[in-house]
Amino acid sequence: MNTLGHKLRVTVFGQSHAKAIGCVVEGLPAGFRPDMDRVAAFMARRAPGRDPWSTKRKEADAPEILSGMVDGALCGAPLSAVIYNSDQHSKDYEGLRRTPRPSHADYTAWVKYGESYDIRGGGQFSGRLTAPLCFAGALALQLLEQRGITVAGHIAAIAGVEDEATDFARVERSALLALSEKPFPVFSDSAGEAMQQAVEAARWEADSVGGVIRCFALGFPAGIGEPMFDGVENRLAAALFGIPAVRGVSFGDGFAAAGMRGSQHNDPFVTDGKAVYTRTNHAGGVLGGITTGMPLVVNVAVKPTASIGREQDTVDLQEMVGTTLVVHGRHDPCIVPRALPVVEAVTALTLLDMLMEE
Amino acid sequence: MNTLGHKLRVTVFGQSHAKAIGCVVEGLPAGFRPDMDRVAAFMARRAPGRDPWSTKRKEADAPEILSGMVDGALCGAPLSAVIYNSDQHSKDYEGLRRTPRPSHADYTAWVKYGESYDIRGGGQFSGRLTAPLCFAGALALQLLEQRGITVAGHIAAIAGVEDEATDFARVERSALLALSEKPFPVFSDSAGEAMQQAVEAARWEADSVGGVIRCFALGFPAGIGEPMFDGVENRLAAALFGIPAVRGVSFGDGFAAAGMRGSQHNDPFVTDGKAVYTRTNHAGGVLGGITTGMPLVVNVAVKPTASIGREQDTVDLQEMVGTTLVVHGRHDPCIVPRALPVVEAVTALTLLDMLMEE
Amino acid sequence: MNTLGHKLRVTVFGQSHAKAIGCVVEGLPAGFRPDMDRVAAFMARRAPGRDPWSTKRKEADAPEILSGMVDGALCGAPLSAVIYNSDQHSKDYEGLRRTPRPSHADYTAWVKYGESYDIRGGGQFSGRLTAPLCFAGALALQLLEQRGITVAGHIAAIAGVEDEATDFARVERSALLALSEKPFPVFSDSAGEAMQQAVEAARWEADSVGGVIRCFALGFPAGIGEPMFDGVENRLAAALFGIPAVRGVSFGDGFAAAGMRGSQHNDPFVTDGKAVYTRTNHAGGVLGGITTGMPLVVNVAVKPTASIGREQDTVDLQEMVGTTLVVHGRHDPCIVPRALPVVEAVTALTLLDMLMEE
Amino acid sequence: MNTLGHKLRVTVFGQSHAKAIGCVVEGLPAGFRPDMDRVAAFMARRAPGRDPWSTKRKEADAPEILSGMVDGALCGAPLSAVIYNSDQHSKDYEGLRRTPRPSHADYTAWVKYGESYDIRGGGQFSGRLTAPLCFAGALALQLLEQRGITVAGHIAAIAGVEDEATDFARVERSALLALSEKPFPVFSDSAGEAMQQAVEAARWEADSVGGVIRCFALGFPAGIGEPMFDGVENRLAAALFGIPAVRGVSFGDGFAAAGMRGSQHNDPFVTDGKAVYTRTNHAGGVLGGITTGMPLVVNVAVKPTASIGREQDTVDLQEMVGTTLVVHGRHDPCIVPRALPVVEAVTALTLLDMLMEE
Repeated sequence: MNTLGHKLRVTVFGQSHAKAIGCVVEGLPAGFRPDMDRVAAFMARRAPGRDPWSTKRKEADAPEILSGMVDGALCGAPLSAVIYNSDQHSKDYEGLRRTPRPSHADYTAWVKYGESYDIRGGGQFSGRLTAPLCFAGALALQLLEQRGITVAGHIAAIAGVEDEATDFARVERSALLALSEKPFPVFSDSAGEAMQQAVEAARWEADSVGGVIRCFALGFPAGIGEPMFDGVENRLAAALFGIPAVRGVSFGDGFAAAGMRGSQHNDPFVTDGKAVYTRTNHAGGVLGGITTGMPLVVNVAVKPTASIGREQDTVDLQEMVGTTLVVHGRHDPCIVPRALPVVEAVTALTLLDMLMEE
Repeated sequence: MNTLGHKLRVTVFGQSHAKAIGCVVEGLPAGFRPDMDRVAAFMARRAPGRDPWSTKRKEADAPEILSGMVDGALCGAPLSAVIYNSDQHSKDYEGLRRTPRPSHADYTAWVKYGESYDIRGGGQFSGRLTAPLCFAGALALQLLEQRGITVAGHIAAIAGVEDEATDFARVERSALLALSEKPFPVFSDSAGEAMQQAVEAARWEADSVGGVIRCFALGFPAGIGEPMFDGVENRLAAALFGIPAVRGVSFGDGFAAAGMRGSQHNDPFVTDGKAVYTRTNHAGGVLGGITTGMPLVVNVAVKPTASIGREQDTVDLQEMVGTTLVVHGRHDPCIVPRALPVVEAVTALTLLDMLMEE
Repeated sequence: MNTLGHKLRVTVFGQSHAKAIGCVVEGLPAGFRPDMDRVAAFMARRAPGRDPWSTKRKEADAPEILSGMVDGALCGAPLSAVIYNSDQHSKDYEGLRRTPRPSHADYTAWVKYGESYDIRGGGQFSGRLTAPLCFAGALALQLLEQRGITVAGHIAAIAGVEDEATDFARVERSALLALSEKPFPVFSDSAGEAMQQAVEAARWEADSVGGVIRCFALGFPAGIGEPMFDGVENRLAAALFGIPAVRGVSFGDGFAAAGMRGSQHNDPFVTDGKAVYTRTNHAGGVLGGITTGMPLVVNVAVKPTASIGREQDTVDLQEMVGTTLVVHGRHDPCIVPRALPVVEAVTALTLLDMLMEE
Repeated sequence: MNTLGHKLRVTVFGQSHAKAIGCVVEGLPAGFRPDMDRVAAFMARRAPGRDPWSTKRKEADAPEILSGMVDGALCGAPLSAVIYNSDQHSKDYEGLRRTPRPSHADYTAWVKYGESYDIRGGGQFSGRLTAPLCFAGALALQLLEQRGITVAGHIAAIAGVEDEATDFARVERSALLALSEKPFPVFSDSAGEAMQQAVEAARWEADSVGGVIRCFALGFPAGIGEPMFDGVENRLAAALFGIPAVRGVSFGDGFAAAGMRGSQHNDPFVTDGKAVYTRTNHAGGVLGGITTGMPLVVNVAVKPTASIGREQDTVDLQEMVGTTLVVHGRHDPCIVPRALPVVEAVTALTLLDMLMEE
């Protein structure tokens, strides 16, 4: 349900307009002293209200740690953290219980939970629930880093504008670290500008756009992953589809592989006499569910924001007649930039979990 | 690991050249009398050696039921079935332990399991392990059918040749049933012929091609799926990545959604006064991880067969020097047609599992 | 780890002297309106500081609900609740990190977590962590009651003094309800007085005593439980051993069955023409892991409180030499009365979980 | 359901009179070469038909390995093994579908599975299903031994006759190894003779007796076990209640602890300057769910065999009237000696699983 992971487990709770959101993280190593400034910096990348392309809702989003940490070090007990909700405009949402917003979870939540469902701000389906995931993920990123593993991603495309192509066999750690520092993490800043223009164009037309996030893991050891249903792909995909708005997950060349020949897609093995590599990395670092030691490459398709400023057709569930609706409230015309750190967080949590299981 | 599902659980075992492969299925309802002829017919769709595009290995592939069934009815105990391996050419594979085949699991299995790994025929990573999955899936398909749910798919693309487009909001049961009857399941037979020509062309060039499988579920009720990490997408993706050669999983418009505007991608709600539908179905039948009641649409990217007849670069793991290799043995130039029933089987097993959990 | 249950899941967090303890409860039905006064009354039975036999630590123990409830009704999102810790004497515990208390988890926690372990008040091993379990259990009890199921127990023995024997085939709901109202829940009040005298005698001698808790479930339907490893006994035992100080779990006649003949222990089936019963209920309501419909009977052995006022031998872990220690702080000479509602809570949570899985 | 373990997983299948019973074992280390003679010797301890106190049914019980092993070494794929059923008297059981045997699972299976239930020989609830558990357990025992861990038990009591008391703090490996060699594993052979006489007495009276099994693990490291719901007790209890006829599980002094004072039950810590021990071991080697490094001690109560030769009251489920029944067929008057290796097997599997999770 709301729990991710096996040996490292994150249980997320809260609704957009509840008193608080938060998470419980089980399995983190005792003695670990997280750098809380870096946690805050990582969470800030997801936080709303900072950029032209994000919602105007502003929240401190500072997690308060309730348990699991003593004098700055983890003590072995579950780490629990809450983020209090403060800036809520609950009245914006009351009508939506009756007229579900297209492409939101309002309707399916109504089917599943009935009238008691917390419609305010998208309830438990709100993107806001990714804040505690980022908190947990920020810790996982630091622990992976201690093991020499870097997880970072870029905006591979927005509105059809693509970032510059990457050779998956030659991803540099320095390039990934540089990405994380950028306010708009792309390899090609000119492509990034074109993406931002596409977002602005959509906003002007009261519309929204989607995009693709590509996340890498460098330094992740070979031999990780169990066959069939517990491989790296199974686990990462199951986790990443937990992020709202994700419509597809693929590895390496992903859906493009479907149009390739074997002679193009196969990655020849090469060696420097000490270790084994692949000359190319179309596979994205995983064969048979098990890591090859090459860079892990996972692609995530993010749909255009469902909340748009235009009038849309919907149904009045009480009268069971068609009607129209205009979604008010504050919404990002493009969720992709804020979803990127969430993808990194979920990837880091899953990879660390798999490492801890070995 | 080799176990799929929660309440309906399938544990798969075997290697390509072991004495047998098989599965244990827990959670099937006592009293259910499977139509074993239809099980055999379904399994025949996956079996090798029948078509020009599949390997020449021929096996009876008839499962022998060891337990769980008495006089044709399930008795409530786990159903276990084995398929004995007979037509084995194990000598073909001995050299591969030293020189891993590109884009196969030989190398990662060597890293993970060491020299004891069963290299023969791909061992536990062989596509042959999907035969027991099809056996279990054939039962799930019959049980879903009893509940009015149809699961079937088509070859959406091979080698870049696409089948005719489908309106995801208007998928007909009769069209799906017709697909299952076709030797080459596509909506457009002319597109199918072009696909088969592309496969033949690749074969002539000792090469291989990949493709995309699209699977539908009709009649699946609304309101199924738990939020965040136990939604329909999480569960289906985790299961489908258990099929060898799968590189991507997406829902509805999938990665294409990333290039769309919200005004294009959103599915307006409509009603006939009794029930709620969506006018379009870009979402592929799921919002917030929960089914809408519209047709479920899942897309699966299958990479080109890794085994090709051309010389490829690899590494001699013993000497740790580069070398070349030509893969002998019998291999499909395109695995997509045989993977289609596997996708249907895994989809059916996962959906039935989720239904049983409600 | 700290998570109980499958479909109804409780994740407990906190340490005795952390900022807070609490829990996240997933899977409760949307629309349920818990009677919070009864929740408070149930939790008060476990709370410290009320009776002569319990520790002097007094805490409000009022859970604050952070999410999952809107206007008194559950909304389908995980229910999260925290209990802030206020009355803490952390200085009492500092020396214990070096000299572990006999029969406490201090030593094993030191082995597992190292110096970072939160030693204060027993950290995450404190009996205080059972407060959130009681909160969650109080909700489960109300939901079971709505289904006609009563879960309640009595103190079967303390310090070898036994409560009056019960015919497990003829447990009355009214008698169980009366138990829950008693400050000292025994069938025989004179036995109860003898137990309390034994507790007082132990206290005077700076010692402690243990006891046995017996918990019943009435009205639980027949046919619940999966064979082998998911039966009622497996699930209840796994859950009940999560309560600190529990040393044994048995069903029906339990260990006494080991000394009986089959002709004594077998429960003959009888009928009133409509339903099937057993004349006796030595089995405690479960055969082959599956409920019979007769009263469920589970017995829980609770060890004497590990904290006693006497000087005890221990080891100075820093110098690795023997030393002695006198445990200060506030402690119950007998934990059994306060453990009884915890046993009821855990039993209720597990039974409701199993019902929800059907 | 029929699956035990997390990282080391055993899935058991079969019914007493199905074509076969067997198991699939996932997670065993590749490269491990089991000593199959010792596996056979271990399984022989459980096998029927060898001793006066066991059923007359004789079966080879030799497991045939279908997959997971190549040339005597495990290859990393799931190990699957089947035992074919040969010596079946199915006609003995047909009437029982209508008149359930007291204290068997016939009635609860009928409630759960309906008429399709396989009643023959107890179906899936038969003690025969413990043969594959012993196969898997024999492998786990060898793997534990490689790590210096010995798991072995004795018959602590039968029919109230107790074996000689053991100092849980001073269990010797040599004594345990000697136990495993004995046809009737008790410390005191004179107590063993008295037990066997009690069994014979019961047999003469067409009756049966139960007993207590105590199992030890020596050399198991300190610090294993997760708090609350994943401790050593939770995991072992959940596993051991999977053995038919088990009515109670306790650790160390178990239910006797409930009658002790803290000053008696507490285990003082002592040291030899290098390591920490406890002077006594009332706790049975576990505190707070985590191992102390002292001998693990688990006690298992086994009920008297339900099948007795006497007339018993039951219900005709078709007519719903009372009737009587005499159970024919071959049955042990005391299951305890044959259950002992099963307890050892399940304990070994669970402990190895927990070790592998660290």
